[in-house]
Amino acid sequence: MTTPPFRLLATDGEARAGTLRTPHGELPTPAFMPVATQGAVKAIDPSDLRAIGAHVVLANAYHLFLRPGADAVRRLGGLHAFMGWRGPVLTDSGGFQGFSLKHLRKITDDGIVFRSHVDGAIHHFTPETAVLCQQELGADMIMPLDVCAPAEAERGDVETAVERTARWAVRCREAHPDDGEQLLFGIVQGGLFEDLRRCSAEHLVALDFPGYAVGGLSVGESKREMYRTLSLTTPMLPPNKPRYLMGVGSPEDLVEGVARGIDMFDCVLPTRIARNGALLVSTGRANVYTARFRDLDGPVEDGCDCYTCVTFSAAYLHHLFKAKELLAYRLATLHNLRFVLRLMEDIRAAVEEKRFEAFRAEFLGRFVPPDERTRSEQKAKWEASRRRRG
Amino acid sequence: MTTPPFRLLATDGEARAGTLRTPHGELPTPAFMPVATQGAVKAIDPSDLRAIGAHVVLANAYHLFLRPGADAVRRLGGLHAFMGWRGPVLTDSGGFQGFSLKHLRKITDDGIVFRSHVDGAIHHFTPETAVLCQQELGADMIMPLDVCAPAEAERGDVETAVERTARWAVRCREAHPDDGEQLLFGIVQGGLFEDLRRCSAEHLVALDFPGYAVGGLSVGESKREMYRTLSLTTPMLPPNKPRYLMGVGSPEDLVEGVARGIDMFDCVLPTRIARNGALLVSTGRANVYTARFRDLDGPVEDGCDCYTCVTFSAAYLHHLFKAKELLAYRLATLHNLRFVLRLMEDIRAAVEEKRFEAFRAEFLGRFVPPDERTRSEQKAKWEASRRRRG
Repeated sequence: MTTPPFRLLATDGEARAGTLRTPHGELPTPAFMPVATQGAVKAIDPSDLRAIGAHVVLANAYHLFLRPGADAVRRLGGLHAFMGWRGPVLTDSGGFQGFSLKHLRKITDDGIVFRSHVDGAIHHFTPETAVLCQQELGADMIMPLDVCAPAEAERGDVETAVERTARWAVRCREAHPDDGEQLLFGIVQGGLFEDLRRCSAEHLVALDFPGYAVGGLSVGESKREMYRTLSLTTPMLPPNKPRYLMGVGSPEDLVEGVARGIDMFDCVLPTRIARNGALLVSTGRANVYTARFRDLDGPVEDGCDCYTCVTFSAAYLHHLFKAKELLAYRLATLHNLRFVLRLMEDIRAAVEEKRFEAFRAEFLGRFVPPDERTRSEQKAKWEASRRRRG
Repeated sequence: MTTPPFRLLATDGEARAGTLRTPHGELPTPAFMPVATQGAVKAIDPSDLRAIGAHVVLANAYHLFLRPGADAVRRLGGLHAFMGWRGPVLTDSGGFQGFSLKHLRKITDDGIVFRSHVDGAIHHFTPETAVLCQQELGADMIMPLDVCAPAEAERGDVETAVERTARWAVRCREAHPDDGEQLLFGIVQGGLFEDLRRCSAEHLVALDFPGYAVGGLSVGESKREMYRTLSLTTPMLPPNKPRYLMGVGSPEDLVEGVARGIDMFDCVLPTRIARNGALLVSTGRANVYTARFRDLDGPVEDGCDCYTCVTFSAAYLHHLFKAKELLAYRLATLHNLRFVLRLMEDIRAAVEEKRFEAFRAEFLGRFVPPDERTRSEQKAKWEASRRRRG
């Protein structure tokens, strides 16, 4: 009998600190996974990732399948060699693109038919091909094909999503039994409905996956609804397996996710807002374009240990953004990712030292996220621009 | 009596190896200066510059005057602190923008009137304000305001340019006598006319500048004309002062420039073509978009010691460019700059070891630049697109 890959080292309330063994090293949890959708974290390189304390990255199987192709990545030595990243990698399956690329896909009982946003070609994604694609890419952790319903979905649609996700999970598990190399996670769906979440979780737990993901959150619901659903869902999952909250990763959500028993997170938010000039600081988000930054001859945040803050003034960053210099995106990305990765280090230490609740209260007392109204307005604007881009 | 800042350490034919003392360290020559027009080398940071062996960078006083303002840079501790670069910096005066931004300027006997490309505001650049601006920026080497005539200019226009450059040089010298800190160079103009070059050089040499630049080349003339003019001009300059060939820096031009007695170069070419996917290799330029790169599971160039070649396959670079990932521009820039900086190291070693002619023959025997016809076509296209952008 082999040692299970996940070890729980400490708990503090629902919060957990652990370690996940992968073929590319041990991953300390809770962990934030910077997103390398197309095999690169936008504007930074693998040596940067190591320098800022990243332990794992997430890549997207769907995007890599389209370009350069999973077989091409395999011929080039697999995803780790291709990206020049020697640590653990998790690949998402393409299930989320079935949600986010609504206008380019059709979901049937057998899988998802996509029209490629790269060249318009038609591709059939089935549970089996999604697994095969990820086997070719060679990530350490892989995800089954699932169906993610939007927050505003009717109960009937969420039921269908849960049923399909369940049937596809069985097919993925058959296509990928435990091999001691790639860990296939199960994905719990069920929207905001407690009974559907339970139904989904029970079905997946019976299939005995080495890890579980909570999907279908941060898809348009309020923060309160998300936190409530998360509080209901994590207790449905076995405590001795890692729990991954998909697509969530604003600082406040990382703290609140850990408080509800989550071990892994991924999100484009820290890197995407960085490129828009929004910098994470202990009090929330700072806009680099504001006049306050123009003459600020000190770092973006006092005491920050990132390369950007140690080397440059906030005024220089302001200048780079105004001048549209490529270096701006790099420096802001380094700062935001370091902020989030340092937060995970602090969270882990707090859990180990049984002072997580105090840490959480202190962090959330200072950190003011954009309010709900602003968020939903931004989301609506973003959706509109996405539709325009076709 | 103080030691002069420039020391000639070795010569081999016309080729020279030396060292230039600046307030921010010794600069080994011949030197290539990566261009940080707006205070940043596009897509890379100061730690990258150190890692690839850059000893000096060039910034543009005109661009920094417009944004964020020379006074703002001064308040932020000067250009070195602002950019986070501790080595020597040279600033160009804005004279070249009097050439390149034709549609936005008017040249009079007193100076250049610019309409800002940032906000349309009118700015008067005089020899005195150009020097003042560079004093505020605090570069180690600064340039006088000059008039650069295009290659196709009539003799009368070149004469006017030479006369104005000469009168402005006197005014700059008065505004900036030797202060033991900032080295003010003289700029020789005169187009392709030997007698005008001589007239310009004699005038400037009489003013006893600590360094001399050759301006008005690579402005539309053929390579043959440029090399011929350079061969005529450098012997007009004092051997004990550094010689800087402005705006020139393709690999073949670096070798040919050193062969004609040049010590310093700057050019956006290596960084600009990098962002267009043209990678410098020992045989010339390689296009990263070609099918050959798609499946190439080896570095862009075998044996290259740059981070990009040591870490990634050519196929990965191809993928990043096709996917328009920001990392592409960074990795290609690191490669091209390292190529050029390593070339300067090799040239210097060859001069010191008295084997420069053999090195030159060997390098130019392998390295095939785009042919003249292609270059002038590209130039015409570029000019047209610049006109369209207004």
